[in-house]
Amino acid sequence: MQSELRKKLLDAFSNNQEEFLSGQALADLVGCSRTAVWKHIEELRKEGFELEAVRRKGYKIIKTPERVTADEIRLGLKTEFMGRHIHSEDVVDSTQKVAQRHVFEGAPEGTVLIAEEQLSGRGRMDRKWHSPKYTGIWMSVILRPNLPPAKAPQLTLITAVAVVQAIEEMTGLTPEIKWPNDILLNGKKVTGILTEMQADADRIQAIIIGIGINVNQQEEDYPEELQPIATSLAIEYGKKLERAELIKVLLVKLEKLYSIYLDQGFYPIKLLWESYAISIGKNITARTITGSISGRALGITDDGVLMIEDSNGTIHHVYSADIELEK
Amino acid sequence: MQSELRKKLLDAFSNNQEEFLSGQALADLVGCSRTAVWKHIEELRKEGFELEAVRRKGYKIIKTPERVTADEIRLGLKTEFMGRHIHSEDVVDSTQKVAQRHVFEGAPEGTVLIAEEQLSGRGRMDRKWHSPKYTGIWMSVILRPNLPPAKAPQLTLITAVAVVQAIEEMTGLTPEIKWPNDILLNGKKVTGILTEMQADADRIQAIIIGIGINVNQQEEDYPEELQPIATSLAIEYGKKLERAELIKVLLVKLEKLYSIYLDQGFYPIKLLWESYAISIGKNITARTITGSISGRALGITDDGVLMIEDSNGTIHHVYSADIELEK
Repeated sequence: MQSELRKKLLDAFSNNQEEFLSGQALADLVGCSRTAVWKHIEELRKEGFELEAVRRKGYKIIKTPERVTADEIRLGLKTEFMGRHIHSEDVVDSTQKVAQRHVFEGAPEGTVLIAEEQLSGRGRMDRKWHSPKYTGIWMSVILRPNLPPAKAPQLTLITAVAVVQAIEEMTGLTPEIKWPNDILLNGKKVTGILTEMQADADRIQAIIIGIGINVNQQEEDYPEELQPIATSLAIEYGKKLERAELIKVLLVKLEKLYSIYLDQGFYPIKLLWESYAISIGKNITARTITGSISGRALGITDDGVLMIEDSNGTIHHVYSADIELEK
Repeated sequence: MQSELRKKLLDAFSNNQEEFLSGQALADLVGCSRTAVWKHIEELRKEGFELEAVRRKGYKIIKTPERVTADEIRLGLKTEFMGRHIHSEDVVDSTQKVAQRHVFEGAPEGTVLIAEEQLSGRGRMDRKWHSPKYTGIWMSVILRPNLPPAKAPQLTLITAVAVVQAIEEMTGLTPEIKWPNDILLNGKKVTGILTEMQADADRIQAIIIGIGINVNQQEEDYPEELQPIATSLAIEYGKKLERAELIKVLLVKLEKLYSIYLDQGFYPIKLLWESYAISIGKNITARTITGSISGRALGITDDGVLMIEDSNGTIHHVYSADIELEK
C-alpha cells in the first residue's frame, strides 16, 4: 500500500510539473491524509529528491537524486505496463538473480529491477560484466509472453532495437548491433543484453532480459584490458546523461516494440534490427561450440537465426555463436 | 560428509548382499571408525531399515523401509550419475519447486528429488496432479545438457520411453504413450511428465523433469472424477510394487537413453518412442491455444514435433497441444 501511495504522489507531481501543489491538493489527488503526504515527502527527500516548499503554494520537485531510484523512474513514466512495477536496490549480486526470485514469487509482466552496482554481473556464456557504481544502467525486465522457448532469442533482438532507439533519442548517436546481443559505438561495446528464461518444454513461463548500459563512465574508469573494447555513452557523446531519463525512454521503446511483436510477429522487428546490424552483408567468422564458420552474413531468419553463406555457397544457420568481422 | 559416509556404507551392503559384514569390515570398507559405523546403522534403523545383527558375524540388511528414502535408492543403484545425488523429503509443495531451488544452488546433473507427498503437484499447463502419500513416485530429475532450449521437448520424450521401459521390466505390462507426455495403461493415465527448464536464450542451463507415477493406489483411493481417466500400476498389474525398485530401474533406463541421445542424437530415441506411441497413424484432434487441428497423426519430427495431415493433405506441425483420439 505504501508504494501505491508513493506512485500516486509521483504521478500527481508528474502531471503538474510546472505548478506548486499544496499538501491538501496532494492529499486529495492521492486519496490519503495530509499527514501521510508529509511523511512521503520526507522520504522522497531522504532518497535525494529536492523539493521547493512555498508557504500557501505548496510543493514542487526541483531536482531528482543522483542515485537512480524506483520513484524517480515512476516520475513521468509514459508506459502502460513496462516498469509499472519497479524495484531499485543499491548493491546486488546481479539484477538477473534478483529478478529470478521475483519470477519465483509471481512478479507480473513488465516488472523491472535496477541496481546501482552489481558484484557479479554476467553476460552470455557466464562471462563477467563490469558494472561499477553510479555510472551505468544495470537492469532486468521480466516479461511473460505466451510463446514457445525457441522464440526467446527474438526477445534479445527486440531489446537490442529498443536500446538503440533509446540511445538515438537521447544522444543523436546511432549505435550498431553485433549479432546477437552486443551494441557498439565506434566499434566498442556500450551495451550487453542477456536473455534468460524459465519455461516448460513447450511454453515460456517468464523471460528475464538483463540489460547493461555503460552510461557515465570515463575512459579511466575502465580496467586497462577493457579500454580497447568497451566505451560509454558519456565518452562517445561528450557529456553525461541522466540515467533515469534514459531508462524511461528505453522502457517506452521496449513496450512499443514488444507490443508490435505480440501483435504482428517478428517480421517488423526484423526489418528494424537489420537496419542497425553491423554484420549483415559482411564477411564474418562465427565461433560456435562445435567449431567455426566463415562466410558472408546474409541476415537473420524470421526466428532470429543468423544465416551465413560460406565460400561453397552453402548456407549455415547459426543459433548461438560469437562473431568476428573480417577486417 | 555425513551423506558421503552413508553412501559408502550402503554401497558396502549392496556389494555384499548375501553376507554379514562386521563392524570392523564396514569401518574398513567405508574408511571411518567403528563408532561412526554404529551411529549410521542406528540412523538407518530410524529410517525404517531392518538389520539383522549376529554376534561375531556382523550386520545384514533384511528389510528396507515402507517409506522410500534416499538411502534405499542408493542401495544397489547401478548408475554412473543419475540419482547419485538424491534427496528425499516427506511432504513438499512439489518436487519441481524443490528442484528449482537445488538448480539455483548449482546442483549437478543427475540430481534427483523425491517426496512421499506433494501438496500442490502440477502437470502441464498448471493442471493439478493428484499425488497422495506413500502410493506413488513423485520425483524430479535435474539434467544439464549443453543444448538450445528448442530441444527441451525431446527430453520429455526420452523420459517417456524410460518410464515405459521401466514399467515393462517391473511388470511385463506395456504402457502406451500419448503425445507428448502421458503414459497410459488400458487407456487410463498412469504417469505424467512435466519438463521445465532454466535457460539462456540460446542454451539450456538446467532441465528439471518431473515424473509422477501412480504405483500402489487402489481404485477407491482416487476421487470419483479421476476414476474413469486415472489408474495405477497396482490396479493394472494386480499387486503392489516396491517403489524404490521401480525408481532404481527407471534411473538406469533414463541414464542409458539420455547417454544414447547425447552421443547419437534424437533419431534412435524417436524410433523407440514411436514404437510405444498410441496415436501414430490414427485420426486425432489436437487442441492448441490458437485452435484445433484434426487429421491423421503421421509421427514426430526429429525435433519431437507432432505432424498431423488434415483432410486437404496439408501437414501441420504441432509443438504444444492436448490430443484426443477419434473413436
